Amino acid sequence: MSYIRRLERVALAVPNLDDAQHFFETWFGARFEAEEHIQDMGIRYRPFMIGESRMELLQSTREDSPVAKYLEAHGGPGVHHITFEVDDLDLALEELQRRGGRVAYRHTYAPGISFEGFAWREAFVHPNDAFGVLIHLAEKRPIQQDPHGRGAD
Amino acid sequence: MSYIRRLERVALAVPNLDDAQHFFETWFGARFEAEEHIQDMGIRYRPFMIGESRMELLQSTREDSPVAKYLEAHGGPGVHHITFEVDDLDLALEELQRRGGRVAYRHTYAPGISFEGFAWREAFVHPNDAFGVLIHLAEKRPIQQDPHGRGAD
Repeated sequence: MSYIRRLERVALAVPNLDDAQHFFETWFGARFEAEEHIQDMGIRYRPFMIGESRMELLQSTREDSPVAKYLEAHGGPGVHHITFEVDDLDLALEELQRRGGRVAYRHTYAPGISFEGFAWREAFVHPNDAFGVLIHLAEKRPIQQDPHGRGAD
Repeated sequence: MSYIRRLERVALAVPNLDDAQHFFETWFGARFEAEEHIQDMGIRYRPFMIGESRMELLQSTREDSPVAKYLEAHGGPGVHHITFEVDDLDLALEELQRRGGRVAYRHTYAPGISFEGFAWREAFVHPNDAFGVLIHLAEKRPIQQDPHGRGAD
């Protein structure tokens, strides 16, 4: 049994979000959602649906961002990471370590930060461990609404 | 609206199926299925489930196979392609071309050939068009059983 819930999305690093969005919309009818900005990481990204599945496009906002480094090392755009969704990140990482696995790094957002209407907790398995693939382990919790109908953050 | 049904799987090119299978089983609890051999392409592959999602591992059986070329060009293992499932390949390719898209090549199997219990029809969009990603467009039809319960192939 897997403690992974599912392959939640595939994320592509691209030099220019507009060009890549145009491609996926025009050729495949992808449905794009609002752009998000991960200031901690120097990344802007646009999630989209293609059929019933989820993907995203990533663009760098700084020269030292993971996406800028990927584009340089990889020599161009491509699959930056794949996301495995887990129910609870703490339990997932305990299970991963119990199985002999290891995490390359864990990313914690400042309190109240949300993306796509979710609070995320996440960690990454290094491509050197995972046959060239950066694996993003992510827990997504819907943002709680308080009893008065205001968002919790 | 998208004529793509879903991101059906992510396929990784690896030098050795056993090593990569061991990794995904041990670290993540992946559930592997029977190995398939695509003789036309010089590829052996092993599909697997990770949570409710599908992936596969690809290994070359010949020096001129697409997987051997990927490993050499890419300098190691990684994401070889992603599969977008369509209901009908002919209609999908008509729609793609109507939208100004193009197919790099189309692969037709000999009659009666099946993989994973399905008859496949497939085409590929070139990574130079698709931001570094080889996109596999695939129609999967369950193998028909005849009224006497024998497989059609």
